[in-house]
Amino acid sequence: MLKINENFAKLPANYLFVEIADRVKKFSGQHPEAEIIRLGIGDVTRPLPKAVVDAMVQAAREMGEAETFRGYAPEAGYDFLRKAISRNDFQNRGIDIGPEEIFVSDGAKSDTGSIGDIFDTDNAVAVCDPVYPVYVDTNVMAGRAGEFLQGGGFSKIVYMPCRKENGFLPEIPAQRADMIYLCFPNNPTGMGIGRAELQKWVDYALKNKSVILYDAAYEAFITEKDMPHSIFELSGAEKCAIEFRSFSKTAGFTGVRCAYTVIPKALVFQGASINKLWGRRQSTKMNGVSYVVQRGAEAVYSEEGRRGVRENIAYYLNNARIILNGLSDAGFSVYGGVNSPYVWLKVPDGMTSWEFFDLLLEKAGVVGTPGSGFGACGEGYFRLTSFNSKENTEKAVDRIVKTFAK
Amino acid sequence: MLKINENFAKLPANYLFVEIADRVKKFSGQHPEAEIIRLGIGDVTRPLPKAVVDAMVQAAREMGEAETFRGYAPEAGYDFLRKAISRNDFQNRGIDIGPEEIFVSDGAKSDTGSIGDIFDTDNAVAVCDPVYPVYVDTNVMAGRAGEFLQGGGFSKIVYMPCRKENGFLPEIPAQRADMIYLCFPNNPTGMGIGRAELQKWVDYALKNKSVILYDAAYEAFITEKDMPHSIFELSGAEKCAIEFRSFSKTAGFTGVRCAYTVIPKALVFQGASINKLWGRRQSTKMNGVSYVVQRGAEAVYSEEGRRGVRENIAYYLNNARIILNGLSDAGFSVYGGVNSPYVWLKVPDGMTSWEFFDLLLEKAGVVGTPGSGFGACGEGYFRLTSFNSKENTEKAVDRIVKTFAK
Repeated sequence: MLKINENFAKLPANYLFVEIADRVKKFSGQHPEAEIIRLGIGDVTRPLPKAVVDAMVQAAREMGEAETFRGYAPEAGYDFLRKAISRNDFQNRGIDIGPEEIFVSDGAKSDTGSIGDIFDTDNAVAVCDPVYPVYVDTNVMAGRAGEFLQGGGFSKIVYMPCRKENGFLPEIPAQRADMIYLCFPNNPTGMGIGRAELQKWVDYALKNKSVILYDAAYEAFITEKDMPHSIFELSGAEKCAIEFRSFSKTAGFTGVRCAYTVIPKALVFQGASINKLWGRRQSTKMNGVSYVVQRGAEAVYSEEGRRGVRENIAYYLNNARIILNGLSDAGFSVYGGVNSPYVWLKVPDGMTSWEFFDLLLEKAGVVGTPGSGFGACGEGYFRLTSFNSKENTEKAVDRIVKTFAK
Repeated sequence: MLKINENFAKLPANYLFVEIADRVKKFSGQHPEAEIIRLGIGDVTRPLPKAVVDAMVQAAREMGEAETFRGYAPEAGYDFLRKAISRNDFQNRGIDIGPEEIFVSDGAKSDTGSIGDIFDTDNAVAVCDPVYPVYVDTNVMAGRAGEFLQGGGFSKIVYMPCRKENGFLPEIPAQRADMIYLCFPNNPTGMGIGRAELQKWVDYALKNKSVILYDAAYEAFITEKDMPHSIFELSGAEKCAIEFRSFSKTAGFTGVRCAYTVIPKALVFQGASINKLWGRRQSTKMNGVSYVVQRGAEAVYSEEGRRGVRENIAYYLNNARIILNGLSDAGFSVYGGVNSPYVWLKVPDGMTSWEFFDLLLEKAGVVGTPGSGFGACGEGYFRLTSFNSKENTEKAVDRIVKTFAK
């Protein structure tokens, strides 16, 4: 008799953003006239740079001609893209990462979600709290999380609280932590991490033979000088870290689907090359990324592509400033938003995050993400994203301020 | 201290097709003048139908305009594609599969490779022998396969021999089998399965509460009347089967990347909806398929798309006939190739599959796939694909015949 993976029963029935979508859909159904502004899911809205579109159009056309048609791509990505990534994101910044240390994929969610495949289920997992739900949920599925406890959280997960008191940065845990998920600039808090602070984690991982799973999906939003764009800027990181990068937020690729994962050849545990293990996993469980998409990603590095990307990032960062300043002026406590498209808002006293969500949806027609959806320490907070238009962002801030001025 | 997933050490170091690519690369390096014809990996070569290219071009352009830009897609696929699939591949053929029972993905390899995520690691896995390596390798990674035995095979996998004696069709196993992988038309043998024969498996699965993981990636190649294109044509299959379909071989999408998995709502084990479990898995571990790609897949169902696809399939099937007839006339024993792009060739007596591979590469400059790479019962066989040009296929057959005529 077939047995299902019982670990799935430990998960909340819906992934966080599906739950939000469901509530918004229900509200819209009841209030078809309501003009809803979405600052909830971290989804981009600016069109793709022209250079990227042109590259995809050309690639699609190539697929229609016998001479230029392409079948299966190399599972880890075409050389043209791996080389462009290596050169532009690493070598030109003085970081020694070669093309063969880069694995192209359809998304950072796929990679952070599946990286656990190559590690034992007995490893102790450490995550920030609040945290991007994928890190926890995928470890629940894999059986690494233990049991769900009354009051929130899983028995075997090491939670690292990120609160106002510690500047929303995690502290080295007292317990054993073999797989440490770090995301900077952080989702959901929007906080960046300084070089010295991150070096502490690298040193800890090297000493304890832990792996750091470093999600740098938001590196393009870094504006402050002291913040590393890659963990591999730090001494020794190539021996303890895997980095996840994405074109989603950088280049507006959430609907195009392209990302990459960096696994240095120097990363070895129990005598095994992690680069080779992941290569084996990928070549067995996927068939590479669409040629059309990879050509689009390559064009992100062209001069015109870069310019388009820079403009989009600047646009979103300006929106983040509008939220930060508008809400701050109105007396809200707000964090993040400087090196990140996310603003982390303290909800008014006496309300839960979901209560604030429902109120904001009903009274202001604004959708955000309840902080408690990201973990126990997110309770009492709320994530707003800067991915809407400037006009809508201004309108949303205005509505929030007015709602609470009453 | 981080521990790796030790199950990976039980795998051969290279995925089969990577091993083949390595050998061919080495040979090419030593013989740069050799004109190699590839009938090895099952990769299409005909360009995409114009309707598909046009749809992708238009979709790429939409992504460059603010009014038509699209961010994250629904994880299970856009409604337009799920509806087109449901209508064209099922409803119009009298099979009651709805859009919400269809999960769009980037490939059947991704889906067959990851479907195990939702099942317990204790389930007994049954596979045909020979078999597409992904079914076995992914279960090895998950810890379902047990130990690798001297002489080939894994201790916990139930192998179902497919030999000439049983018409290359598996027989119901004597041992417990909870997860049964079936692929028809078969990869690698190229054999189709008749309705009555497949019904036996459905009845067995229903009786034993097993799940059939039915890979129908090659259904478009079926030419014989009695062969079901979908397992859901059979009575009771909606209560015991998951079907994997792909645009790869059907519509030449190996480099475009689109596939789908059908999980009926009626599929329930231990009270759990498998449709919901997979939905949870997918929405947690991936972010949907590229909008551009999904528009391309939708266009496969347009009138012009259909015509293009039909022409390509006919072209490949004609190649299969060329291989079948040419080698058969020369005295080889050949199977498959009628409802499939694959021809299953008995290698000359006294040679192993890999010896035949090396010989064919060296003497004829033809690349095929050694049957032993698909399992112990594949030893002594060799897979040839019909995915090359007609000219190359004829040339390859000619060269093989001449090599062995000496």
